[in-house]
Amino acid sequence: MVRNIYTGKVITLNVDTVKLPNGVTVDLETIRHPGAAAVVPIKDDGTVVLIRQFRHAVGGFIYEIPAGKLASGEDPLHCAARELEEEVGYRASSFELLSSIFTAPGFADEVIHVYKATGLTEGRQQLDRDEVLEIIEMPLHRAIAQIQDGTIRDGKTIVGLQAVYIENATNR
Amino acid sequence: MVRNIYTGKVITLNVDTVKLPNGVTVDLETIRHPGAAAVVPIKDDGTVVLIRQFRHAVGGFIYEIPAGKLASGEDPLHCAARELEEEVGYRASSFELLSSIFTAPGFADEVIHVYKATGLTEGRQQLDRDEVLEIIEMPLHRAIAQIQDGTIRDGKTIVGLQAVYIENATNR
Repeated sequence: MVRNIYTGKVITLNVDTVKLPNGVTVDLETIRHPGAAAVVPIKDDGTVVLIRQFRHAVGGFIYEIPAGKLASGEDPLHCAARELEEEVGYRASSFELLSSIFTAPGFADEVIHVYKATGLTEGRQQLDRDEVLEIIEMPLHRAIAQIQDGTIRDGKTIVGLQAVYIENATNR
Repeated sequence: MVRNIYTGKVITLNVDTVKLPNGVTVDLETIRHPGAAAVVPIKDDGTVVLIRQFRHAVGGFIYEIPAGKLASGEDPLHCAARELEEEVGYRASSFELLSSIFTAPGFADEVIHVYKATGLTEGRQQLDRDEVLEIIEMPLHRAIAQIQDGTIRDGKTIVGLQAVYIENATNR
C-alpha cells in the first residue's frame, strides 16, 4: 500500500507499507525522484572540469561534476551532454557510461548515470536562474588528492573521478 | 523560511524558501536525514566483506558495504563498528575514515562517513527485524570488476571500494 504524503516539483514522498522477503511488514518512507545524469569531462592532457556549486540542502558550496535531473522521458546520455554544455560550456565527441548508481537506496529511488566525456570542444554555457556555480579545472591526480583530503565530498563526483582514475591506471 | 511537510521515523521533508547567493529566491524541497556510517571490511588477504540487501526503495536486492543510520548523538566511528558487527559479524582492530560523502546534495543533507576496517576478528551478527541480507565475500579486485560491469551500483559502496583500491595501488 502506498500513501502519498507530498508531490513536489522534484521529489515525491510516499509512505509504503511493505512485506519484506522475511515476512516482516514495515512502513517505509520512500522518496521518488526522476533520476539524473552526471559527467566527468576530461581533456586530453588529463585535466578534469569540475564545478563549485551552491547547494542549499548541505549548507553551502561544494565541488561536483556537471550533472542534472532527467527531463521526463529523456535519455540519460542526452541529459549528460546537455548538462555538460549548459553548466560548463563544453561539448564532447565521446561519452562512456561508467556506472548507474543508487545515491540513497535506504530511502530514495534516485539513480544517477555517471559518464566520462572526452574529445572536449567549446560550446556555450547557459545556466538556469537557480544555478550558482563556478568552473574549476585541475589535473585528475589533484582531484583524487582532494577526495582523500576531504575537499571533494559529493558521492557521484567521487564515484566518477575514482572510476576514471582506476580505468587510466589499468590501461597504462 | 522553512515549511515542514512531514516528519517521519527516518527523514523529514521541508520546503525551504531560500535566497540564493545570486539573489534569486526559490522554494526547495529539502530532506533532512540523521546521517549514517558505512564500512569497507577488508581482510589481510585482500578479501572484502559485502552484503546483498533488500532495499524496497530501489525495488530489490543490491550489493552494499555494511552501513547504518547514526543514532541520536552517536559518533560515526562507533556507528561503523556497531554496524560492522551487527550486519556481518566482524569486529575490527583498526578503522580509517576514507570520506564523508554527501549522497544527494540536490535535495538531501545526508552525510555518510565511509571507513575502512582492518584487523578483522569474529564477532556476533545480530540483524534488526527489518534487515534482510546475506553476506558475500570476494577479492577486492573482483569487487572493482563488478563495479565496472554494473553489478555493484550503490554509491557509498563504490566510493569505499574504489578508495581502498586506489590507496592500495598508491602504496604498492
